Amino acid sequence: MTLQNKQVLLASRPQGSATEENFRIVEAPLATPAAGEVLVKNEWLSLDPYMRGRMSEAKSYVPPAPIGEVMVGQTVGEVIESQDPRFKPGDKVLTQLGWQLYGVAKSGELTPIDVKRTPASYYLGVLGMPGITAWFGLSEIGQPKAGETVLVSAASGAVGSVVGQLAKIKGCRAVGIAGGRTKCDYVVQELGFDACVDYKAGNLLDDLRQACPKGVDVDFENVGGEILDTSLRLMNRFSRIVVCGLIAEYSEPYRYKALRSVLVNRIKMQGMIVFDWKDRYSEALEALVRYHAEGKLKYRESVVHGIENAPKGLIALLKGENFGKQLVKLD
Amino acid sequence: MTLQNKQVLLASRPQGSATEENFRIVEAPLATPAAGEVLVKNEWLSLDPYMRGRMSEAKSYVPPAPIGEVMVGQTVGEVIESQDPRFKPGDKVLTQLGWQLYGVAKSGELTPIDVKRTPASYYLGVLGMPGITAWFGLSEIGQPKAGETVLVSAASGAVGSVVGQLAKIKGCRAVGIAGGRTKCDYVVQELGFDACVDYKAGNLLDDLRQACPKGVDVDFENVGGEILDTSLRLMNRFSRIVVCGLIAEYSEPYRYKALRSVLVNRIKMQGMIVFDWKDRYSEALEALVRYHAEGKLKYRESVVHGIENAPKGLIALLKGENFGKQLVKLD
Repeated sequence: MTLQNKQVLLASRPQGSATEENFRIVEAPLATPAAGEVLVKNEWLSLDPYMRGRMSEAKSYVPPAPIGEVMVGQTVGEVIESQDPRFKPGDKVLTQLGWQLYGVAKSGELTPIDVKRTPASYYLGVLGMPGITAWFGLSEIGQPKAGETVLVSAASGAVGSVVGQLAKIKGCRAVGIAGGRTKCDYVVQELGFDACVDYKAGNLLDDLRQACPKGVDVDFENVGGEILDTSLRLMNRFSRIVVCGLIAEYSEPYRYKALRSVLVNRIKMQGMIVFDWKDRYSEALEALVRYHAEGKLKYRESVVHGIENAPKGLIALLKGENFGKQLVKLD
Repeated sequence: MTLQNKQVLLASRPQGSATEENFRIVEAPLATPAAGEVLVKNEWLSLDPYMRGRMSEAKSYVPPAPIGEVMVGQTVGEVIESQDPRFKPGDKVLTQLGWQLYGVAKSGELTPIDVKRTPASYYLGVLGMPGITAWFGLSEIGQPKAGETVLVSAASGAVGSVVGQLAKIKGCRAVGIAGGRTKCDYVVQELGFDACVDYKAGNLLDDLRQACPKGVDVDFENVGGEILDTSLRLMNRFSRIVVCGLIAEYSEPYRYKALRSVLVNRIKMQGMIVFDWKDRYSEALEALVRYHAEGKLKYRESVVHGIENAPKGLIALLKGENFGKQLVKLD
């Protein structure tokens, strides 16, 4: 049987919101691994908000994805052919192969994963970049102390859900922001946050005030826009804002009016990208694996089936329509 | 001769810009010092941007000044009557007595100053709160390294002029922002900044790009509004923004559109108030006195004569019409 690859290419840059027209699905012959390379069959593709940034030409923390090339992204998959003694067929690996069914990678770019006790897909979420992002953002920038209030936007998402649970482990009051009653119920009842505010309910400021009676000491910001601008009004003296994502701003910049709070309350607001800690990932992973094994890190996945549906999955994610870590199941 | 006190009271809170109608000048009998108190004849009154904040009811880092009471402010003056053995008539002191010709203070609220080698008024500026603000803001939050670019708004002002000169001492490129050619020339030619951009010239972004060819590593922000929003576009990766003053926002909040730079460039933006370091003032003063004695800290004062003109002086300061540290000479 001749294997046929299928890829999703970036066809054009979005004007405003991303649409399916910005992608093109193509078939392609399989590449053959050279010495030191490995052929991987992807099983899971991770969809993440940062991908919207890569689709744009605007300056960001990494260069834009090139038009006509395979969309970038992390996958987990299985080695099916290896020209490197460190890998053999059947090995499970974490890759940067992007939106395609198969891909050839240099062996140095692959991370072996252990799927005996952990589902492979978890390495794209709670035990992957999102979990590691939550860990370093909260502990290194947020620096919450027991008894403080930690506010997290996109609280049911891959990063936010871990942030709130880590805050609880540290003895903080964890308050989430999510869209809709179902997500908010999940954040409180399943993830164990103390409260969760539904930003779609239309009373964001009042609802936040009620959920954070002692103000906010750490805001872990995944959304930005009106949510950040409102949260700024609740920040306590000497509080911290971890600027991890500004998904609300991908289509158009928001105009913030509450920045004076930074001065009045001596807030420390700091932007973060998980790559900045790449030499220390193992530190985070060790803790996350342990908490997960102890049942302290609940986790939820939202799965789209088939690579053809990856664009739809990303578009839904950017609109907040997913629920939990967004994945594409490829086989 | 019976001495008569003259005071400037806060008459009403400004709607938008502060006007002379917001103040009332009154005569009042002199208070008599009780045990442990001292009567001071004020000689110099300091005018500072923070005073506009105190005139408002909006939440800030200190409570608003009460209507009908003497406007708050630092002065330097001479002891004319003392009921405390630590002070004797003729001693020069730094006070918090506010906008009045005479005042009675508890002796513990006065700081003796040495006017043998330093003009008394310098304790309200380069060797006072503004200088100390510059010192802690730059060294503790800005943390500039030799070779980096430090951008300072209100560069000819009491704080900004010290920030830029300290940046030069630390081996940085110091770039100022000021209003008008005269101030910019002074900042470069007298204070020794490497460049100064005139924000009134109408090409702020382009002029800043030209003055900061390697981007900005530290922005010491005294102004806010369009100046901060534009500076945000020039910030380098891992740069720092010291939010010391947002004078542009006193009349109405500004709507910032470039906040995404905080995420993309992993900026650390932090608000500061000099009081937060009050246990360490002597550290800053020691350095400032030494640099000043070595001729490394140039300094300029802008003097209004007579307490009746203090409101005019503050209003001009808030419009950027002063040039250097704004003082009122009282006798």
